[in-house]
Amino acid sequence: MISFTCDYNVGACPEILHRLAETNLDQEPGYGEDRFCESAKARIREAVGCPDADVFFLVGGTQTNSTVISAMLKGYEGVIAAETGHIEVHEAGAVEFTGHKVLTIPSHQGKILAEELKAYLERFYADEAYSHMVFPGMVYISFPTEYGTLYSQEELTRIREVCLQYGLSLFIDGARLGYGLMSRESDLDLHELASLCDVFYIGGTKVGALCGEAVVFPGGNAPAHFFTTIKQHGALLAKGRLLGIQFDTLFTDGLYFRISRHAIDMAQELKSIFHKAGIEFYIDSPTNQQFVILTPNQIESLRKEVLFEIWDQLPDGRSVVRFVTSWATTKEQLSRLEELLATC
Amino acid sequence: MISFTCDYNVGACPEILHRLAETNLDQEPGYGEDRFCESAKARIREAVGCPDADVFFLVGGTQTNSTVISAMLKGYEGVIAAETGHIEVHEAGAVEFTGHKVLTIPSHQGKILAEELKAYLERFYADEAYSHMVFPGMVYISFPTEYGTLYSQEELTRIREVCLQYGLSLFIDGARLGYGLMSRESDLDLHELASLCDVFYIGGTKVGALCGEAVVFPGGNAPAHFFTTIKQHGALLAKGRLLGIQFDTLFTDGLYFRISRHAIDMAQELKSIFHKAGIEFYIDSPTNQQFVILTPNQIESLRKEVLFEIWDQLPDGRSVVRFVTSWATTKEQLSRLEELLATC
Amino acid sequence: MISFTCDYNVGACPEILHRLAETNLDQEPGYGEDRFCESAKARIREAVGCPDADVFFLVGGTQTNSTVISAMLKGYEGVIAAETGHIEVHEAGAVEFTGHKVLTIPSHQGKILAEELKAYLERFYADEAYSHMVFPGMVYISFPTEYGTLYSQEELTRIREVCLQYGLSLFIDGARLGYGLMSRESDLDLHELASLCDVFYIGGTKVGALCGEAVVFPGGNAPAHFFTTIKQHGALLAKGRLLGIQFDTLFTDGLYFRISRHAIDMAQELKSIFHKAGIEFYIDSPTNQQFVILTPNQIESLRKEVLFEIWDQLPDGRSVVRFVTSWATTKEQLSRLEELLATC
Amino acid sequence: MISFTCDYNVGACPEILHRLAETNLDQEPGYGEDRFCESAKARIREAVGCPDADVFFLVGGTQTNSTVISAMLKGYEGVIAAETGHIEVHEAGAVEFTGHKVLTIPSHQGKILAEELKAYLERFYADEAYSHMVFPGMVYISFPTEYGTLYSQEELTRIREVCLQYGLSLFIDGARLGYGLMSRESDLDLHELASLCDVFYIGGTKVGALCGEAVVFPGGNAPAHFFTTIKQHGALLAKGRLLGIQFDTLFTDGLYFRISRHAIDMAQELKSIFHKAGIEFYIDSPTNQQFVILTPNQIESLRKEVLFEIWDQLPDGRSVVRFVTSWATTKEQLSRLEELLATC
Repeated sequence: MISFTCDYNVGACPEILHRLAETNLDQEPGYGEDRFCESAKARIREAVGCPDADVFFLVGGTQTNSTVISAMLKGYEGVIAAETGHIEVHEAGAVEFTGHKVLTIPSHQGKILAEELKAYLERFYADEAYSHMVFPGMVYISFPTEYGTLYSQEELTRIREVCLQYGLSLFIDGARLGYGLMSRESDLDLHELASLCDVFYIGGTKVGALCGEAVVFPGGNAPAHFFTTIKQHGALLAKGRLLGIQFDTLFTDGLYFRISRHAIDMAQELKSIFHKAGIEFYIDSPTNQQFVILTPNQIESLRKEVLFEIWDQLPDGRSVVRFVTSWATTKEQLSRLEELLATC
Repeated sequence: MISFTCDYNVGACPEILHRLAETNLDQEPGYGEDRFCESAKARIREAVGCPDADVFFLVGGTQTNSTVISAMLKGYEGVIAAETGHIEVHEAGAVEFTGHKVLTIPSHQGKILAEELKAYLERFYADEAYSHMVFPGMVYISFPTEYGTLYSQEELTRIREVCLQYGLSLFIDGARLGYGLMSRESDLDLHELASLCDVFYIGGTKVGALCGEAVVFPGGNAPAHFFTTIKQHGALLAKGRLLGIQFDTLFTDGLYFRISRHAIDMAQELKSIFHKAGIEFYIDSPTNQQFVILTPNQIESLRKEVLFEIWDQLPDGRSVVRFVTSWATTKEQLSRLEELLATC
Repeated sequence: MISFTCDYNVGACPEILHRLAETNLDQEPGYGEDRFCESAKARIREAVGCPDADVFFLVGGTQTNSTVISAMLKGYEGVIAAETGHIEVHEAGAVEFTGHKVLTIPSHQGKILAEELKAYLERFYADEAYSHMVFPGMVYISFPTEYGTLYSQEELTRIREVCLQYGLSLFIDGARLGYGLMSRESDLDLHELASLCDVFYIGGTKVGALCGEAVVFPGGNAPAHFFTTIKQHGALLAKGRLLGIQFDTLFTDGLYFRISRHAIDMAQELKSIFHKAGIEFYIDSPTNQQFVILTPNQIESLRKEVLFEIWDQLPDGRSVVRFVTSWATTKEQLSRLEELLATC
Repeated sequence: MISFTCDYNVGACPEILHRLAETNLDQEPGYGEDRFCESAKARIREAVGCPDADVFFLVGGTQTNSTVISAMLKGYEGVIAAETGHIEVHEAGAVEFTGHKVLTIPSHQGKILAEELKAYLERFYADEAYSHMVFPGMVYISFPTEYGTLYSQEELTRIREVCLQYGLSLFIDGARLGYGLMSRESDLDLHELASLCDVFYIGGTKVGALCGEAVVFPGGNAPAHFFTTIKQHGALLAKGRLLGIQFDTLFTDGLYFRISRHAIDMAQELKSIFHKAGIEFYIDSPTNQQFVILTPNQIESLRKEVLFEIWDQLPDGRSVVRFVTSWATTKEQLSRLEELLATC
């Protein structure tokens, strides 16, 4: 079977495994105070162009979202997200578990619009009863979004302006950050992205690591005692070296960007294979997640040899299906898919 | 420098690294639905002698404690622990963060006594105002304890009886389980331990793994939808294979027990080195954590080459100091410590 | 000024004040163990036709909602509500504060539809990723709704059937229960309503009391140790007598229903005044809340002497405005309003 | 039966009932925006000598404690209290329910000592692992304490100094504040008390009101949007007038202090009755709670006509028993008790 189900279905970049083996018996302190974490933080500060940035390594995405969001919100505040946002839909209520409401606004293929955000905030403060309501305290967006789409620099800048106007912090979920930045359609680099938000994370789990997300507060603006908050949320890894080594490796010699670009190249190839096969696209995604529309017959036929996720059902009986490439996708896998598509 | 600070200061057993490399490009589903997790669960069920056991893999200890405790308690219940228990002291309030109180009873070198537990419960239900108080719903103990001590089969049986009498569940924190079971002074094996509690976990992080704790509900008595609760608590690893591979390896051919026994052998050797050097013991620990009393001069002298943790200050100016062995401790490290002790 | 802003803008029924004065120096136990609470519970059990019902007195509506909902949900569950539901909009995130998500479905003038509820549940369980999502555990509806509308017996029965089919409990927020039951358009009485849900409350604050809501578990199905949960949520009144006396009075000789009917009569009169004045209705409400559409000039003119709430802005510049009657509304107030409407 | 069980076993001061009746049909806004609340706040600001104080009215003590504490603590902080503190023992875990740990230090007849508080804080920050622990963020004390004892001005000043040194806020639970301030042994007045803490509350429930506690932030230092936090915690009374009227009345013409003094006078009389009867005191309390030691025979005999609370059991078979006076205690009740004591 060939799997295009997701970008976390294999292990790690060989470079990471190599480095883990190499350093395995070096004795280092726990909880992220090891020299690997130190080095990784220095490399990330340089990569994001923020010498004063605070950097923390957490283990997974849902954990990172709920820890960052609850640490940055006041008790009476909630977080605004697209109604398709990961925190709203697929995190089992992890944000609410910390006591905060997710406030939703419309999603446009996964993205929110600055003008709709602004309208939401205007309506909120115009409501006579707003002091009986959850205050918006933060905006959460994902880059790329859950639908593989990207914010342009202009779109992000305008969202940021609305946030500043209303005193909201802006948090970018970068679980697939590399696949966004390396997209040919992205007009944002890592420096620019860092300058346009209050906090973001660089996803490792989906971009070459066994696990791990690097949270960056570009302005050195981490909440006080954020280390203790991470511990309290069960998000502190005892062997922090596991995260330090991985991110140190990913940010050595541009590995993170190189493997992200590979996934984008594979996605481009995938798109062209679908085009050639006459498959309809559900969304025009410039990143590593591709959403196409298949008939029941096509699904049945492909599934004998290929794994992918059913995303949604259309009224006409066809299905929206997600195919995902990653740093580990091979040309051979794509060729085989092409052959199969030709016969179904 | 040689470090005896803790049992999580190096990487993983070579067998684990080997297995990670070997399986690295196998495509597998995420979130613990991979074949490695399946295999690991089967091996653990066999090792604990409970064919119906529910097994879940989480990433770290604090996370596991707060997830298990909050999933098993009712909203109005708290968890009883020794006043030195890890959840009471060193988890940054992770249990309280989930809304539950830790109810403390006295610690005897890290252990609670069945009779004191019983007295606590009798007093609680004798109090006219008990409905205004937090109901005891669970007992938390650690095996070995935070002081390296062990419950005997009889002690554990009596605690279990009190729990049954008062309708409390019994949870055993096994972050260092291997080092307890493999102690020469333990009269409990894994089957017996599993039969004497409602839930426990088999620590991986401190016993040979990069990360990971295997939660076991021996009677198949996991709370409903515990998977979703794990996700909600940010404790679900996307690449569950990382945990599956590690535990599958640890429970193949008795590796977990073999490396645990090695740490115990090293601890025995360490004890005899301290004895020979005339160092006073603070606690007579049968496991891999040893607590000795050093003078300021001894500490200063040793610290040039050896790392260890200051545990407590004594009124006479000396310090309680913790030395920890692990699966990775070498005879060479011990020999060097012996030489250094001879000169300080 | 005459106020139609809400149904909690004056004190209490004279009968209640009289009874408070009469019993003022009687010494009684605290926390709801007084004889007034006992008597009130007996009267309520009789009024709802459930001799085994568990009855608890809480102080206010938001408090009651969050206490009941969090006590009845499992940790991984959320509560389904109309997107206009009070718990979703105007309780400052009190439900999320207890760790639970509010799951919204469309609102039809404040009501949810059984078929849309069912569709939501079908979609949830059809989703391959549902174990990563918040489980629906309860349905919350209000009777009357926030828009003054009512569920018919058939509508409520069908919602109940869906709940039973999917294992959800059904909770009815009865903050204005009397005004619903006494509406001429209601085909439900208190016995029937009680038989169609798992828990509901009889609103006192908005129906003649100084404060207080009577929570009823018709089947004696209160969660274990609900008293302690109430205390934990800060919702236990020390002088429980204050609640007992009020509900005992309200449920003596049908006072609760009589004063509710008065508010309905006044609302009917109010409607006819608006009709005569040619005012457009925004919703056809059969209860004590009336929503009409006023021009800016009408609003400006009326506001010199009359208080009411602006509910929403229409695109054409007019406003949706809420007028509320209560047990205390007088014919004089309505007559004056009629005069004013004639001149604006 | 005569009850000395507590200070909340009757209704309210006649002045309050009178005022409630008098204002009953005045239409006023809800949620504390009425003119009674406004007036009451002005009177309280004057009584505490803090013209800029923020004042909020909540309904009960446990609710007030958990709302204030959780609003003022950061997420990673806990609150220090005596191990006998009300929040630690008798609030069903309401503080933990909001996610915060109660950190206990020794109790000396209900009081904490500045030097022990300081020692606790020194130990905390000297601990190498303190970042893995709950940070102390606030000190909670009660005045009078749960044992009826009082802090002197010097004791309170020294506690305050330690708080300032370590950046902790100081919160005084004044559920029985009047009975403390009016004690003949108190060397603190309300101005001084207000100047020595960051927040405190003036208890109404136990001092003449039907319900209600007035939270005072002397320096106008209420947390941002505290109104919304109150709502979120289910602690906002819709008919805020009920609280406004009561506190306005209590702080008119010194009523609060006059009735408090009456309770103290009755307590003095009670003490002298016990002395005359040769009853042993458990604590020498200068306030309205008296703790005496009775034999089983005395208890059995008295209980035929008198209600009181068993507080604790002594090893010799006798019991610690609490007798409480209040604003409503009468000389007749005391005389009857004296007669009964003479015969048992």
